[in-house]
Amino acid sequence: MGPGKAASLADATRGRILFGGDYNPEQWPEETWHEDVRLMKDAGVNSVTLGVFSWAKLEPRPGEREFGWLDRLMDLMHTNGIGVVLATPTSSPPPWLGRLHPETLPVDEDGRTEWWGGRQHFSHSSAVYRRHAAAITEDLAARYGGHPALVMWHINNEYCTYDWGDEAAARFRQWLRDKYGTLDALNSAWGTAFWSQGYGDWAEVHTPRRAHYLKNPGQVLDFKRFTSDMLLECYVAERDIVRRHSPDHIPVTTNFMPLWAGQDAWRWAEEEDVVSVDLYPDPRDPFGAQHGALVQDMTRSQARGPWMLMEQAAGPVNWRGVNHPKPRGLNRLWSLQAVARGADAVCYFQWRQSRQGAEKFHSGMVGHAGEEGRTFQEVKRLGAELRRIGGHVTGSHTRNDIAVLHDWHSWWAGAHEGRLSTRVDHTAVLTAWHRALWQAHLTTDFAHPEHDLSAYKLVVVPQLYALTDPAIDNLLAYVRGGGTLVSGFLTGVADQDDRVRTGGMDARLRGLFGIRTLHEWWPLDEGETVETDGFRGTLWSEEIEKGDGGTVEVAYKGGELGGLPAVLRNGRAWYVSTLPEPHALRTLLAQVADGAGVRPVLHGLPDQVEAVRRGDLLFVLNHGRESVTVEVPGSHQDLLTGATVEGEVTLGRYGVMVLRP
Amino acid sequence: MGPGKAASLADATRGRILFGGDYNPEQWPEETWHEDVRLMKDAGVNSVTLGVFSWAKLEPRPGEREFGWLDRLMDLMHTNGIGVVLATPTSSPPPWLGRLHPETLPVDEDGRTEWWGGRQHFSHSSAVYRRHAAAITEDLAARYGGHPALVMWHINNEYCTYDWGDEAAARFRQWLRDKYGTLDALNSAWGTAFWSQGYGDWAEVHTPRRAHYLKNPGQVLDFKRFTSDMLLECYVAERDIVRRHSPDHIPVTTNFMPLWAGQDAWRWAEEEDVVSVDLYPDPRDPFGAQHGALVQDMTRSQARGPWMLMEQAAGPVNWRGVNHPKPRGLNRLWSLQAVARGADAVCYFQWRQSRQGAEKFHSGMVGHAGEEGRTFQEVKRLGAELRRIGGHVTGSHTRNDIAVLHDWHSWWAGAHEGRLSTRVDHTAVLTAWHRALWQAHLTTDFAHPEHDLSAYKLVVVPQLYALTDPAIDNLLAYVRGGGTLVSGFLTGVADQDDRVRTGGMDARLRGLFGIRTLHEWWPLDEGETVETDGFRGTLWSEEIEKGDGGTVEVAYKGGELGGLPAVLRNGRAWYVSTLPEPHALRTLLAQVADGAGVRPVLHGLPDQVEAVRRGDLLFVLNHGRESVTVEVPGSHQDLLTGATVEGEVTLGRYGVMVLRP
Amino acid sequence: MGPGKAASLADATRGRILFGGDYNPEQWPEETWHEDVRLMKDAGVNSVTLGVFSWAKLEPRPGEREFGWLDRLMDLMHTNGIGVVLATPTSSPPPWLGRLHPETLPVDEDGRTEWWGGRQHFSHSSAVYRRHAAAITEDLAARYGGHPALVMWHINNEYCTYDWGDEAAARFRQWLRDKYGTLDALNSAWGTAFWSQGYGDWAEVHTPRRAHYLKNPGQVLDFKRFTSDMLLECYVAERDIVRRHSPDHIPVTTNFMPLWAGQDAWRWAEEEDVVSVDLYPDPRDPFGAQHGALVQDMTRSQARGPWMLMEQAAGPVNWRGVNHPKPRGLNRLWSLQAVARGADAVCYFQWRQSRQGAEKFHSGMVGHAGEEGRTFQEVKRLGAELRRIGGHVTGSHTRNDIAVLHDWHSWWAGAHEGRLSTRVDHTAVLTAWHRALWQAHLTTDFAHPEHDLSAYKLVVVPQLYALTDPAIDNLLAYVRGGGTLVSGFLTGVADQDDRVRTGGMDARLRGLFGIRTLHEWWPLDEGETVETDGFRGTLWSEEIEKGDGGTVEVAYKGGELGGLPAVLRNGRAWYVSTLPEPHALRTLLAQVADGAGVRPVLHGLPDQVEAVRRGDLLFVLNHGRESVTVEVPGSHQDLLTGATVEGEVTLGRYGVMVLRP
Repeated sequence: MGPGKAASLADATRGRILFGGDYNPEQWPEETWHEDVRLMKDAGVNSVTLGVFSWAKLEPRPGEREFGWLDRLMDLMHTNGIGVVLATPTSSPPPWLGRLHPETLPVDEDGRTEWWGGRQHFSHSSAVYRRHAAAITEDLAARYGGHPALVMWHINNEYCTYDWGDEAAARFRQWLRDKYGTLDALNSAWGTAFWSQGYGDWAEVHTPRRAHYLKNPGQVLDFKRFTSDMLLECYVAERDIVRRHSPDHIPVTTNFMPLWAGQDAWRWAEEEDVVSVDLYPDPRDPFGAQHGALVQDMTRSQARGPWMLMEQAAGPVNWRGVNHPKPRGLNRLWSLQAVARGADAVCYFQWRQSRQGAEKFHSGMVGHAGEEGRTFQEVKRLGAELRRIGGHVTGSHTRNDIAVLHDWHSWWAGAHEGRLSTRVDHTAVLTAWHRALWQAHLTTDFAHPEHDLSAYKLVVVPQLYALTDPAIDNLLAYVRGGGTLVSGFLTGVADQDDRVRTGGMDARLRGLFGIRTLHEWWPLDEGETVETDGFRGTLWSEEIEKGDGGTVEVAYKGGELGGLPAVLRNGRAWYVSTLPEPHALRTLLAQVADGAGVRPVLHGLPDQVEAVRRGDLLFVLNHGRESVTVEVPGSHQDLLTGATVEGEVTLGRYGVMVLRP
Repeated sequence: MGPGKAASLADATRGRILFGGDYNPEQWPEETWHEDVRLMKDAGVNSVTLGVFSWAKLEPRPGEREFGWLDRLMDLMHTNGIGVVLATPTSSPPPWLGRLHPETLPVDEDGRTEWWGGRQHFSHSSAVYRRHAAAITEDLAARYGGHPALVMWHINNEYCTYDWGDEAAARFRQWLRDKYGTLDALNSAWGTAFWSQGYGDWAEVHTPRRAHYLKNPGQVLDFKRFTSDMLLECYVAERDIVRRHSPDHIPVTTNFMPLWAGQDAWRWAEEEDVVSVDLYPDPRDPFGAQHGALVQDMTRSQARGPWMLMEQAAGPVNWRGVNHPKPRGLNRLWSLQAVARGADAVCYFQWRQSRQGAEKFHSGMVGHAGEEGRTFQEVKRLGAELRRIGGHVTGSHTRNDIAVLHDWHSWWAGAHEGRLSTRVDHTAVLTAWHRALWQAHLTTDFAHPEHDLSAYKLVVVPQLYALTDPAIDNLLAYVRGGGTLVSGFLTGVADQDDRVRTGGMDARLRGLFGIRTLHEWWPLDEGETVETDGFRGTLWSEEIEKGDGGTVEVAYKGGELGGLPAVLRNGRAWYVSTLPEPHALRTLLAQVADGAGVRPVLHGLPDQVEAVRRGDLLFVLNHGRESVTVEVPGSHQDLLTGATVEGEVTLGRYGVMVLRP
Repeated sequence: MGPGKAASLADATRGRILFGGDYNPEQWPEETWHEDVRLMKDAGVNSVTLGVFSWAKLEPRPGEREFGWLDRLMDLMHTNGIGVVLATPTSSPPPWLGRLHPETLPVDEDGRTEWWGGRQHFSHSSAVYRRHAAAITEDLAARYGGHPALVMWHINNEYCTYDWGDEAAARFRQWLRDKYGTLDALNSAWGTAFWSQGYGDWAEVHTPRRAHYLKNPGQVLDFKRFTSDMLLECYVAERDIVRRHSPDHIPVTTNFMPLWAGQDAWRWAEEEDVVSVDLYPDPRDPFGAQHGALVQDMTRSQARGPWMLMEQAAGPVNWRGVNHPKPRGLNRLWSLQAVARGADAVCYFQWRQSRQGAEKFHSGMVGHAGEEGRTFQEVKRLGAELRRIGGHVTGSHTRNDIAVLHDWHSWWAGAHEGRLSTRVDHTAVLTAWHRALWQAHLTTDFAHPEHDLSAYKLVVVPQLYALTDPAIDNLLAYVRGGGTLVSGFLTGVADQDDRVRTGGMDARLRGLFGIRTLHEWWPLDEGETVETDGFRGTLWSEEIEKGDGGTVEVAYKGGELGGLPAVLRNGRAWYVSTLPEPHALRTLLAQVADGAGVRPVLHGLPDQVEAVRRGDLLFVLNHGRESVTVEVPGSHQDLLTGATVEGEVTLGRYGVMVLRP
């Protein structure tokens, strides 16, 4: 491939929603493969992911190659019209690699080795691992890059390993040299003048291993950046190999885990042809649907268009304390929700539930109960429905009026052990704000704080503890340009090195929000709330002195902060110094959105109903177990049933309609 | 000794109940020994266990021997008519062994060494440890095998160590070669085709050390089997030595910890002449007596006759968070309960409470308060009572009509970290079912699922997650033969390799119970219950489709499972797909038992009273602090008081009667 | 210096209360230093601590010296009349030391190394560390020992490290040889006859590393003693160096952490010229003021006169889960409380809040909000007030009528993992008893059980689990001499080797209290209480048989202990066998104190008000947020305002008066 490469998900979907899942046929005798194909065709499966965990099968001993079984599978899939997403098998090296090269095993911050016998027991920094991974990838790509069954490359699987070991330390040093150039620059960025941590020689710099007391925040922050970058190097190296061996129209992806702390997904998405994600909301979580919506919104925003749901579960997973199955209809509902929010591929881990191994209680599209089982019967019905709507939705995209800002680097910086409140969890705050918008039926994109925001009517900052100067300039310019901005607490506190900005919040931001002095942060205890004249705040409060231009929209009431601003506004810039209780945050954001000219998807929707526009289609989803009737102005056709609806629609338990005007 | 060896507990008891305890005279000056003997005789002690922790005293430096002190003690005991259970001292090696041979120290799964300074700091796999243990055992047995004070050999103490270290790994490999023969067989049994875990060389196989994510279940399961087997090898090696040096009538034992996960006690019991157990119910546990009954029933079943209570506490232990003493009378009550359920030996850890060391707050028969103390005074009274009843009970045995099935391998397989609910704890489920029977005044044996069950009227399976084919055949044959079977959920799910049986439950068992399809397991959250038309279920529920022959005895009500079977019956085979609340399980099992022709020991017993038959004697025990009057048809003599009772008996607080018709 | 050395805090204060804090100017550009000096003078700062974390700055590479920056700072301080407490920088070695000498890093009991990147990553036992620490101390002392800005030496900082590593083990062995002389003596003291732990060679003795089960208590106890002694050796070595280079009037200190378990502060205080402490009550703790009072009383008692508050926080700290700021006025209130209880120095960590590093969210005297911030404004007002009262209070001392006994060795011995109740926490019991006295407005000293107690009217023993024979003799003599003694449970149980005294309590003490037999200890569960005829007891109870001379003051009611003594008295000796609920303990101690002729500072004080006498001054402090009026007989002048008050005073929220008759 050359620089002209621009494959995308559309090259794989070609007008159909991809439907299928991880297929690990190594577990089954070949006769089962044929039974599988029969059931796949019965269920409308058009895509399977092969090879994710096949390294030991492909290379049973160092340097050997056993491709025959995979040849047969690729041909079998092709013969039956099922596309193959072919994975490089590098996420789970064979036992011989660890045995012959123990230095390829990761080491944790306490010096403990992670052995083989599970999966992902590789160090991202190991040269030996990378060499072996490149070699098997090269041979795999050379052999199948041109195979007619191939529709996409899938690199590795759920990159998620850390390593504090010696080789990682050496690579970390090199990464730091590349970043900082001089030790003086590193010493300055890390603030090593405190606690006598000044480095006089690069060899003294280490991964942030177990320490007697709080670790250096700059070192920890850079270690997180380094980890994301090392994993990305592993990905890019394999991506470049498979691209060399494949036609232009074969896109490359690797699957994200939703909101996983270890990966700067904004940066990673730039290196992918297809952005894909694994999504496992807890069927028992009353806000499972909103969690799904959040992940879907974020993935779509990273993809800047259609994206791939690489893994979900048809039933229970097996890694929670208590793993609940999906009640009848829920798998369909959540699958169609993903389509509504931009997915052009609805896939599962895994096709056939394992009988052995660590995930034998993780459900499959074909469960232990087999073809007769409720799970497979529901999968089959869903396949038929996706086939029905595929041509109408694939490739279409909707840009929303609201952008929620999120940044991994800010998250990383704000998570240092020595912070004011360990109760402040970045993803919990992000979730609370997104939930308030979701409950207000306001649909949102996500954006990075340095992205161009000018197309949005409202920008929402749940929390951006660390902001670069360009990001601050971006926010200021956005508001100057007529945008409405609403920000939660602990925003703009630090710079990119986790250096606290003078005054505890950047002075320009203070000016923007109308804050004169931020005297003290007042974190709240578990169960503690703070009264205001409008609502109760949770988690946090602040002792703020209002400055010029600021208007106190809501004031604290009683206690030490009585009379001080809880919500402060300066024109179109709002600052919320606590976390309002859920209904209050929802009301507040609905009010701000309304002021910014942003309207809900539909008016008068009950809480349990979600409405989402994709292209010209309107998805209406009932997350409740009770039937519900919803006003939908005008006349529509429901693509799922072909029925025409006028003015209102009635949705049964977990009901969905895909309405075309 | 030769193959004709058949010593038993009767050789040691000779018509008396053994009464005494661990005696660690190394802690005391010799003058205290004589004081001890005076108090022992005062209390009716007829047996002491010597040498459990004497290795460093016997072999203060490698190869040295100091037997003089033990000679004097053996003689002293003999002179005073006190039998000696002589222990091999191998559970706590002297410091010099660890220092000279650090490879004898166990290593945990995180690579951390367990140092000397506590006890049991030996690797079961260490050749050096085994060689030293054999040497001291050899010399000890040679010296005392013929001593007239010797009544029993006690090997080691509470075998309970794991080891993930390098020598253990080498032994594990050999154990696996012996079991599987080929790597193909191992790969198949462990399901290594999943997650790229295929082994191509025996040297790649390891103990299941710390991993990045879920470990291979087959590897973990075999590691548990290996651990039990290695410990058993240690036991057998020492047993064979002491047998060589002793007369035929000296039995050999090692003491079990009740329901300890690490030891397949069914298998171990086969290698013992006397089955002995350590039993420490919490005096504060409202179900302490039932816990005792469970352990006693299981130990008796393993012994297939009288057994030995090797250790209990006269007062508090010191290893709980809060260690409560035994209120007045409780030590007597629980000691007589053990006799009722088959114990021919009632012993303690330890004779005289330590003043130093890690267990100085673990009570003794002679506590810190000495001869005057309440504890010793109660011990003394108990000794007199045991003397009174000894001749009537020792050697007698009762077979019950109910067998509760239990199997370590099933427990091990079902405990994998990647299961559907970590709330399902094998021993908790086992305890719940035994408790229901105990509360219904139904006395039970325990049995292994492959045992001959034909003599029982009712077989109860609280949970047997993994069942071998012979075990399934055994259950089917039992019901075919007219037996009544009642099984709890998660039974028959997997085979001996933890391979899920097709359909999520063995097809033959599904047929037996009248189940067509097991669609999904529905584990319940903490605090969650499920309604049925008969009771509330806890912990678990299931989405079952009834098959031919099945009758829905109890149906789920409302929710996702409404109308589906909670309790299903097919003739004499019952399946309970949830854990009914305690009173409901009690009622259900009483009903099933009644249908099978099994009756409680006495009718109309109040909850706080336990009645147990042993031989022709009837033990009636009041576990309450209030007096109670109980109907006992007919005329009996109470062996404890000599009184004759007619038609009813009145028991005071913690009162006991031993009634002879 | 020679043996005549007797510098004290008075040499540094010279009639002023020292006011200032740790100053870490390495973090800031030199222009900020001048801004700092301006603000220091504005706030009345007369003392700063320099150099605590300066090792890497002073010695950026092994053997190099960079003193220029410190020269300029010392001169700048001197020029501006600010005294310097100069610290040896040895608590945080530079990264190069760990890199070149990994053996200087501490190792925990699990074998895990504590790396650089935090602070205090040094092994107290490392010869290399000690050599480097001595060298930098030597050069620092030589250069600044005669500097006119120097007012005190501060050695290291918060000594608090443990080490289980190999060099520590070698030093431990030597320490044990020095203590015991022979292995026989060690074996006897540790009770190694139990569990086969007898040592036959010194080389077998080790630090108490991870063990399979409970560790040897004697070994653990001696390891704690050894740790305290090793840290003290480090301190003494540096102290002796700085003394050699300084004039007679420069005192030496190191700062204690309040009630830190690792340091026998009675022993340490003997080696200090100034006793200093770091004190960080939680602003949210409703008993924060009492915690402060306890620490202040203990520090004053260790100092036997005025002492130094080396560190407190002007606002929040950053090491709790949730870190609350100090509400308006609280910093002043708690600072003046320290003065009331003997502090002649009120200092902070740190002068200017960091912008980087692990403690950037730990407050400073100048916070992120800078000069305008509420925090600095309050600091400034406090500085002015301290200037006003300094001449009246510095150097003055008050001896109280009550001594509370506390001993680290007893604490250590009683904390063994194998004790009867892990709910019994030494500091919690100590705090409960001190709190009862504090609430009764009874002011107390602390004393060691072997101190001369004859000057006290009342001696209070919250809990002294282990007592030496001289200590027991001391208590007996004290009561014989007319003193009143009141003791809580678990006192006199063990001797100095943690050997349980016969009978579970020393026989002489049993005689003293009128106890015949201590049958059993009855620890209570979480949430459990025990009834008496006077109050409810918590945490503990005992089954005691009264002996000659004993009077049952309060008896248990109901339950197993009904009728037995809860509180027993024999003349002037009281024994309390449970922990009475707070108000009951307060009432009981007030009654005992009254009987001993001890009166509260003022009569009729409301709960929220604390009154303390220092010299001839009376401090009255309102810990409430509501105004309160208090009777104060006679006429006084309030030194803070100059106002004269007659008969009563009114204190606003957090108000304080310093009254001179």
